Amino acid sequence: MSNALQYSSSSISAVSHAQTNVAVFGATGYAGAELSRILARHPHANVTSLFSSTNASLDALDAEVVFLATPNEVSATLAPQLLDRGIRVVDLSGAFRLAEPTLYPTWYGFAHERPLLLNEAVYGLTEWCNGELRDARLVANPGCYPTSILLALRPLCFMLDREQPVICDSKSGVSGAGKKSDVAWSFAEVSGNFKAYGVGSHRHEPEIRQGLHLGVRTSLVFVPHLLPIVRGILSTMHVAFTNPVSEQQLTDIYSRIYANAPLVDVLPAGQLPELKNVVNTPRAEIGFQLLQGGRRAVVVSVIDNLLKGAASQAVQNFNRMCGYAELEGLR
Amino acid sequence: MSNALQYSSSSISAVSHAQTNVAVFGATGYAGAELSRILARHPHANVTSLFSSTNASLDALDAEVVFLATPNEVSATLAPQLLDRGIRVVDLSGAFRLAEPTLYPTWYGFAHERPLLLNEAVYGLTEWCNGELRDARLVANPGCYPTSILLALRPLCFMLDREQPVICDSKSGVSGAGKKSDVAWSFAEVSGNFKAYGVGSHRHEPEIRQGLHLGVRTSLVFVPHLLPIVRGILSTMHVAFTNPVSEQQLTDIYSRIYANAPLVDVLPAGQLPELKNVVNTPRAEIGFQLLQGGRRAVVVSVIDNLLKGAASQAVQNFNRMCGYAELEGLR
Amino acid sequence: MSNALQYSSSSISAVSHAQTNVAVFGATGYAGAELSRILARHPHANVTSLFSSTNASLDALDAEVVFLATPNEVSATLAPQLLDRGIRVVDLSGAFRLAEPTLYPTWYGFAHERPLLLNEAVYGLTEWCNGELRDARLVANPGCYPTSILLALRPLCFMLDREQPVICDSKSGVSGAGKKSDVAWSFAEVSGNFKAYGVGSHRHEPEIRQGLHLGVRTSLVFVPHLLPIVRGILSTMHVAFTNPVSEQQLTDIYSRIYANAPLVDVLPAGQLPELKNVVNTPRAEIGFQLLQGGRRAVVVSVIDNLLKGAASQAVQNFNRMCGYAELEGLR
Amino acid sequence: MSNALQYSSSSISAVSHAQTNVAVFGATGYAGAELSRILARHPHANVTSLFSSTNASLDALDAEVVFLATPNEVSATLAPQLLDRGIRVVDLSGAFRLAEPTLYPTWYGFAHERPLLLNEAVYGLTEWCNGELRDARLVANPGCYPTSILLALRPLCFMLDREQPVICDSKSGVSGAGKKSDVAWSFAEVSGNFKAYGVGSHRHEPEIRQGLHLGVRTSLVFVPHLLPIVRGILSTMHVAFTNPVSEQQLTDIYSRIYANAPLVDVLPAGQLPELKNVVNTPRAEIGFQLLQGGRRAVVVSVIDNLLKGAASQAVQNFNRMCGYAELEGLR
Repeated sequence: MSNALQYSSSSISAVSHAQTNVAVFGATGYAGAELSRILARHPHANVTSLFSSTNASLDALDAEVVFLATPNEVSATLAPQLLDRGIRVVDLSGAFRLAEPTLYPTWYGFAHERPLLLNEAVYGLTEWCNGELRDARLVANPGCYPTSILLALRPLCFMLDREQPVICDSKSGVSGAGKKSDVAWSFAEVSGNFKAYGVGSHRHEPEIRQGLHLGVRTSLVFVPHLLPIVRGILSTMHVAFTNPVSEQQLTDIYSRIYANAPLVDVLPAGQLPELKNVVNTPRAEIGFQLLQGGRRAVVVSVIDNLLKGAASQAVQNFNRMCGYAELEGLR
Repeated sequence: MSNALQYSSSSISAVSHAQTNVAVFGATGYAGAELSRILARHPHANVTSLFSSTNASLDALDAEVVFLATPNEVSATLAPQLLDRGIRVVDLSGAFRLAEPTLYPTWYGFAHERPLLLNEAVYGLTEWCNGELRDARLVANPGCYPTSILLALRPLCFMLDREQPVICDSKSGVSGAGKKSDVAWSFAEVSGNFKAYGVGSHRHEPEIRQGLHLGVRTSLVFVPHLLPIVRGILSTMHVAFTNPVSEQQLTDIYSRIYANAPLVDVLPAGQLPELKNVVNTPRAEIGFQLLQGGRRAVVVSVIDNLLKGAASQAVQNFNRMCGYAELEGLR
Repeated sequence: MSNALQYSSSSISAVSHAQTNVAVFGATGYAGAELSRILARHPHANVTSLFSSTNASLDALDAEVVFLATPNEVSATLAPQLLDRGIRVVDLSGAFRLAEPTLYPTWYGFAHERPLLLNEAVYGLTEWCNGELRDARLVANPGCYPTSILLALRPLCFMLDREQPVICDSKSGVSGAGKKSDVAWSFAEVSGNFKAYGVGSHRHEPEIRQGLHLGVRTSLVFVPHLLPIVRGILSTMHVAFTNPVSEQQLTDIYSRIYANAPLVDVLPAGQLPELKNVVNTPRAEIGFQLLQGGRRAVVVSVIDNLLKGAASQAVQNFNRMCGYAELEGLR
Repeated sequence: MSNALQYSSSSISAVSHAQTNVAVFGATGYAGAELSRILARHPHANVTSLFSSTNASLDALDAEVVFLATPNEVSATLAPQLLDRGIRVVDLSGAFRLAEPTLYPTWYGFAHERPLLLNEAVYGLTEWCNGELRDARLVANPGCYPTSILLALRPLCFMLDREQPVICDSKSGVSGAGKKSDVAWSFAEVSGNFKAYGVGSHRHEPEIRQGLHLGVRTSLVFVPHLLPIVRGILSTMHVAFTNPVSEQQLTDIYSRIYANAPLVDVLPAGQLPELKNVVNTPRAEIGFQLLQGGRRAVVVSVIDNLLKGAASQAVQNFNRMCGYAELEGLR
């Protein structure tokens, strides 16, 4: 658990200024389009190809790094082929996020043909990675909900009362579901509406459990909701501590962990973030309010689901992989 | 043209209080659902069947009046069959709105098999119908855009400078397009957006020309736009008069014509209506502002596209057809 | 606690069909306007006066029942004066909701001059009232958030693990805050935004504690959020049970309690309600999903904050007070 | 009129790369905040001070160029004081947009104390300025509606039938009105609503007349509408030509005029732009559709009202004033 408290932006001694050839598969979805937009103006990325999910071709692919913004099963198939050609992969799907292969048939509906890659894949919650991104061949870019939750709760993991449930009430804009040709996602149906969905069955639930290192004793309640907005995730999290904590203690913990994280801001105790602070930015904001004499807390985090929850975090990871400065392309 | 100035709510001598058996075809679309909801609480309508557009069956149909909220071609096929069984029809599609058969292949993409029905069909812009609805076998319920425009401009027809174009800049909420399984109508695409569409090619254009009795000399410019809201149409109309008019004259004309129309309100001169006044109501509101010493006017009208622009106008027509009070079921 | 399980719509033997003279104070706010609209078409309410919050006059007031949609302190002042004149009062503010007078200075910022009225006031969560509304002089209409939470959790109170916190994550449209001349409530600020607010300090928190009969051992975590929509509240509630329960057990409990409640619908186990089902209606919907083998549940409820959360519940209470049928004016 | 057809991005022989000290007055409004954000990352702007509209102080002001995002009358007072100190001014208000002093009392409600400055001020519709910005002491940044209309119609001015009205039906998001502490601009009032306003009385009307060089014979009908979105203006314009024109002719005219304008895109004939193409960008898009054999056209333009309609155009002008590349700070 010690590394949970030892965040450090990898101190890169020799930053390369060369160009890296990159390609994007799945560039026509919302996350893929954001990613393509960021890479197009990235000073060290040379975008050689953009493919939709369906027309990707590996012949004559001239890329050192490929970003997969493809469906889970497409990524599961493409990533090994790319790795076999010596191409590094940043996968934005869920195909390589779970370390335990047996979870895939249950939660994702398919079995991995190359389960050993799950061990090799680096889970790219950037601020919690150290040197491992530098040499990674395969990076599993975190899900949008898990990013919003893990950034906020990982720093507190060592203090949590493991007999009490961790409750995550998350709300996402509709772009999180991708481009949808479905009347349920039409403006007329979504506008003015709000609902919970996928309680107990959302694929991000095992990813959150894994990311918080929750054992069998600790229950996780994850309730995603659909907001009638396009972009952004706000997660409201309810946790109990083993021992009462003070505002100063929590502030110190967060400050120490995210001291060198330019894209994660922690608000003063008692102040909670709102979505508009982060929409269209690569940043996350976290706030908390202590309750019951410090025995419980409400923690709230916000991110742009398409950026820190997908595309910009992929570029953060790319920067670390290639030795570029963390904010390159993200300012 | 004289009847253009002689609106009168048909003075019904003997209002029946019996129940009329009705059925709705296409009850699952937005307009059909509104219609079914209104009929369900209508004191004189006995809803015997609700069908979607695809599962309609004419066997064992126990209805005196059928409402068709079906696609144009489905209505064109079903209506004659219903009439042949002695069932009266209120058609909410465009299948019987145009009196001229040759317009159908051009604007609707199909040829009518029973073109004589176009002559028989009563164009159900309720406030402009007199006794003809009482005996109508087939009522063509007006389109949403034409309703918003004709209610506002018909009273002025006799004064318009026929050498000047009539310009109708209309804006509709997305429900006007019906339930859409299409990414172009998804929340993520529509939210925060606004656009014009179908300039010169919208099917409501010949219907507006017909409703305004525009001759070949007079051009009509109809520009529909898509508002990022669910319900409502606001039409901004630009007209020129043969001779300068005064506010009092226009007010008098509107007042006289709509004196007995409980669902059309004309605002004081210089005051323009806004959508929220009419959304979720069966009413229309009209306002105008004179310009250039009375030689031109901007006229603005608002309706709920699913109600006065579709379902509630169909019920107004039904009430007239059956001799019920005009507001029955619509209060 | 026994009455918590014994809901019954008061079996009214003799329903009066006479008219009752009513007046509304605060008729220009959102809740007051909805209330006035409902009363205007209520067959047994004769609206004699509508006042804004500031121009109310008690002279020559010809009303048997007065609805107060006024600010808390205005209600606290007006209600005793009305009662002294023999006028019955339905107060939509928070002035008489809390039975314990000492809570007022802390949560509402003023001390009650007539604290005994707090004992007399009937807390008008209609479905949980029995005969007491019939003779009530003063009804405290519940808050919008408490209505959404109490309808869903009261049936489960007797089963809850009192050592575990009750967590209520509620989301409300902006009309809940009333008409606001404040840039923070402007369209440009609210649109596309989402945030939590008032954690640990919202006035509805003691009302929820009181309504759930939570003792000192049981903590309540109430986190209200602001949705970028106009109307509706969805509350997501997290509870733990003393003993594991089955879906059938919960379904039976809810069914029994709300068997005669025409405005509360409980969905089949595992199905969660969405806002659009209830917006613009006087109804509440409740759904639940069991977790962890029945030891915990997520319960979700939805209401229209201006109707069941304010105006229509006031009319339900009025109907009970006067012996009218519960749905009179609300169909 | 010849210069109307001779757009050229001022061929800057010697681009300076030095820093220019700038200050922003009115930095807390929507346009001022956008402007401050752009300037903060502008490679050649050194922001020395940001003031709100009320706390501006001219003492110790260390700026070579001041941007005024202040109310009209504040700008009218501040600009002369700044010019007298040798500071160049870009004014985003309407205080110096109209060349004719007598229009100010009528349209703006105040008389100019330094009317000669109206002659000196350069009307900063950037794409239509040539060398005059280079030496300008005072630039009047155009209004948002006029920008959207003039960019689209100026190229056509020489072809317009001057006996026919120019009709501009414009729709703007709410941020155009600035930060509003007014219930009329609250989310609850604006959401789902749409309306026209200010017909015949909007201050941008004389600015449009002036910009199109409309003589007394030609009438202008300008109808602004309020869209329930935050950002963006779409203008639908209706014009008649002296002689019929072809699509190719119009395309050629637009292409020639905007050939060197990197921020104005003209779509292929018959294709109309939508708001989302330009929101959050400094660009304008223009499209047109010919009608009636080329005798009339519908022209549609879109801009972001806070950027091309205010802040980014101010920076374009600043770049021209200081000899920086046109897109500096705007990429």
